Amino acid sequence: MIKCVYPGSFDPVTSGHLDVITRAAAMFDNIIVAVLVNKNKTPAFSVEQRMDFIRRSTAHLPGVQVDSFSGLLVDYMKRQNANLVIRGLRALSDFEYEFQMAAMNAKLAKDVETIFLMTDINHSFLSSSMVKELAYHGGDISGLVPDQIKNDVMNKYRG
Amino acid sequence: MIKCVYPGSFDPVTSGHLDVITRAAAMFDNIIVAVLVNKNKTPAFSVEQRMDFIRRSTAHLPGVQVDSFSGLLVDYMKRQNANLVIRGLRALSDFEYEFQMAAMNAKLAKDVETIFLMTDINHSFLSSSMVKELAYHGGDISGLVPDQIKNDVMNKYRG
Amino acid sequence: MIKCVYPGSFDPVTSGHLDVITRAAAMFDNIIVAVLVNKNKTPAFSVEQRMDFIRRSTAHLPGVQVDSFSGLLVDYMKRQNANLVIRGLRALSDFEYEFQMAAMNAKLAKDVETIFLMTDINHSFLSSSMVKELAYHGGDISGLVPDQIKNDVMNKYRG
Amino acid sequence: MIKCVYPGSFDPVTSGHLDVITRAAAMFDNIIVAVLVNKNKTPAFSVEQRMDFIRRSTAHLPGVQVDSFSGLLVDYMKRQNANLVIRGLRALSDFEYEFQMAAMNAKLAKDVETIFLMTDINHSFLSSSMVKELAYHGGDISGLVPDQIKNDVMNKYRG
Amino acid sequence: MIKCVYPGSFDPVTSGHLDVITRAAAMFDNIIVAVLVNKNKTPAFSVEQRMDFIRRSTAHLPGVQVDSFSGLLVDYMKRQNANLVIRGLRALSDFEYEFQMAAMNAKLAKDVETIFLMTDINHSFLSSSMVKELAYHGGDISGLVPDQIKNDVMNKYRG
Amino acid sequence: MIKCVYPGSFDPVTSGHLDVITRAAAMFDNIIVAVLVNKNKTPAFSVEQRMDFIRRSTAHLPGVQVDSFSGLLVDYMKRQNANLVIRGLRALSDFEYEFQMAAMNAKLAKDVETIFLMTDINHSFLSSSMVKELAYHGGDISGLVPDQIKNDVMNKYRG
Repeated sequence: MIKCVYPGSFDPVTSGHLDVITRAAAMFDNIIVAVLVNKNKTPAFSVEQRMDFIRRSTAHLPGVQVDSFSGLLVDYMKRQNANLVIRGLRALSDFEYEFQMAAMNAKLAKDVETIFLMTDINHSFLSSSMVKELAYHGGDISGLVPDQIKNDVMNKYRG
Repeated sequence: MIKCVYPGSFDPVTSGHLDVITRAAAMFDNIIVAVLVNKNKTPAFSVEQRMDFIRRSTAHLPGVQVDSFSGLLVDYMKRQNANLVIRGLRALSDFEYEFQMAAMNAKLAKDVETIFLMTDINHSFLSSSMVKELAYHGGDISGLVPDQIKNDVMNKYRG
Repeated sequence: MIKCVYPGSFDPVTSGHLDVITRAAAMFDNIIVAVLVNKNKTPAFSVEQRMDFIRRSTAHLPGVQVDSFSGLLVDYMKRQNANLVIRGLRALSDFEYEFQMAAMNAKLAKDVETIFLMTDINHSFLSSSMVKELAYHGGDISGLVPDQIKNDVMNKYRG
Repeated sequence: MIKCVYPGSFDPVTSGHLDVITRAAAMFDNIIVAVLVNKNKTPAFSVEQRMDFIRRSTAHLPGVQVDSFSGLLVDYMKRQNANLVIRGLRALSDFEYEFQMAAMNAKLAKDVETIFLMTDINHSFLSSSMVKELAYHGGDISGLVPDQIKNDVMNKYRG
Repeated sequence: MIKCVYPGSFDPVTSGHLDVITRAAAMFDNIIVAVLVNKNKTPAFSVEQRMDFIRRSTAHLPGVQVDSFSGLLVDYMKRQNANLVIRGLRALSDFEYEFQMAAMNAKLAKDVETIFLMTDINHSFLSSSMVKELAYHGGDISGLVPDQIKNDVMNKYRG
Repeated sequence: MIKCVYPGSFDPVTSGHLDVITRAAAMFDNIIVAVLVNKNKTPAFSVEQRMDFIRRSTAHLPGVQVDSFSGLLVDYMKRQNANLVIRGLRALSDFEYEFQMAAMNAKLAKDVETIFLMTDINHSFLSSSMVKELAYHGGDISGLVPDQIKNDVMNKYRG
């Protein structure tokens, strides 16, 4: 049985992330979207907010759960009895970093597999950082984040 | 239900291809390895030989079938009622071409998904062309093609 | 005064090319779309057909002329008294080849400048070769070539 | 009418930047070199110094103005009634980031176009960071920054 | 006579670095592994620790010395009367940065040559940062750093 | 003792190749420039002409010999008792192919090392193909090939 983990910072979840989750959910029954807690970074949104954003954006997808983790991904996979990592690849970047991580994880845990989905080409320029920069300057983030969380992301940066 | 197609020229199937097939077979029950018949190219091995090489290399993998097709991949997917394309990405190349194809196929058939597996890093330099060049010059191809077909590949190039 | 040349094989002109021409025509009054005649290649469409395809696709753009040339681009630029080369860059490829050509041309003709437009992201997978392959296999090329030439391209490959 | 903006940090302006400005000024009559004020970064030179450096380096180019802005580039373009963004591409990097920005800006403002000039190949290794690192260690920055500002940049790092 | 410098942060030295040193030592009699002291970065290990790690890892290689330097590499080369820089290239990254540095150094010092060795493909995912992240989370770093220093690296991160 | 081979098609040798040979000759006493005879390609210049071109271009470099070979590079290295392959990397391309070859050769012959020199940045756009295309169209190839062979290359394409 396949149990998937889609790990990431999701600070905040974007329409590109949601596209990956939606397409993965069409393939697999059991997906954990797992927010990585990185103590060395200062996220814009708390772990709880980020998980809440993902939950509201994926409420219509029955097989999708939301969780958080710290430490190594491969250790989290073992604790969850999960065997498949899902990652999105954006056409315009990501490639080398993602391959380094996949190669490292393959070395650390032989029974963990990584599959890559190509991010929809319309989202290939999209990142959480760009969303935050846009929102910070009062730009329009419609379509860049799920509709369910758009106002919350914008409110954070309003005076 | 997921039905996968792993398309390619497989002229001949390499250990890198077999690694992708093996890992895909651990995830999915129903995989067709589909040899692309391209009338504009002159392959080293006939379609029948290439299919036979794959069959012998994957005989131990119960969910794997071997087939051939010509024309557009998305049309073949429809005829087979298949919905998932599997592609290997080698760390050292492939990226742009694979993304062009995946984007084109996503446009042509909305219900066809492509997933990428990273080829094992030890095979990242390996291609069917390199195998043929090596064999042509009498080099050692052990480990570069499945053991089951090694002699047949070498015999083709012996005097 | 700026006189532009947009050189290429245009075998046939695609919607990606037309997007570049349209955006260039919004900036510059004087653009020659110049079909490169390469005696070492066998194009699918004759020079006349390719020029006719471009003319019909750009009839609504007043400052755009269509021409053909053989030999070095920089020599053609001099004959036309043109000083600006326009090139499209697709997000998924092109980069290195285009930079080699631009660097070579900058060396050959100091007064010739090259500017790059990024091809619309929706066309980043699109090439004349893909259009021909699709048409050859009876695939749908709507949206991939200008509407004005769609039927002509398809008819070429019909039985 | 075309009104161009060449945005950047210019901390400090380099010979590579000046090469782009000079070549753009040969094409367009109306160019604003716009220093981006980023509150989250600590530049080596103040906005005023950076603008002064650019002014002195471009005094011989009649159509070039110098300005600064904060916030989104597309908003600044609207305020200036400008419609063309100019960016340099160095052969050795820049590509992916520049394409992400251009795609984002194309989405945010349909009437804003971005053109890319290839940085002169002799400057392809050159960046403001390298200039600062060299100057900090007492290295020779002749030819790497415009002659007009060389002493000022070096003086900043002298004991 | 050739005198080589292999510069880097080595925070800490990895098996990938050691592979480069070992292969360089098979070619050249006189190699200085030189730890770069960068006052703007906070390394995990002190300069002395990093030099000690390298010394213990290379004790069996007679022509290899260990040193540290601050400032520009080309100035250090002159002080050492050295004429050859050795750098490893990992298949999965490094390329552009390394070429920028080599081009800059070639400009700064005409008599300094840079040669690149390809890092062993099994180490292409490996970096000092990954080693530290793994060790921080209690992951297994066997094989990723030289055996001689493995316990010291792990002890740093133990409670 | 180090014995180097610099393999290639050299059809014809360019100023970029000569730059690599010159810099390698400053490091190593014993270099064979080895013309690869590839029966599947139709070169513009015969093996004898290509060797003659290299000989005349390198006559002033005492440690440089010229030879030709067919078959696998690693087999030629063994026959020559050579242990070091020299390759130039152009900033604008080459990277992936060169790494595939180096990885393959490292697998085939453990005692053969490959080092890469970065081609001079002024030659990063230069290739034998571009030289031939230029010469074919009567363009100026001064500086692109060694002075000693310029007339011979041009004469080939004159009427």
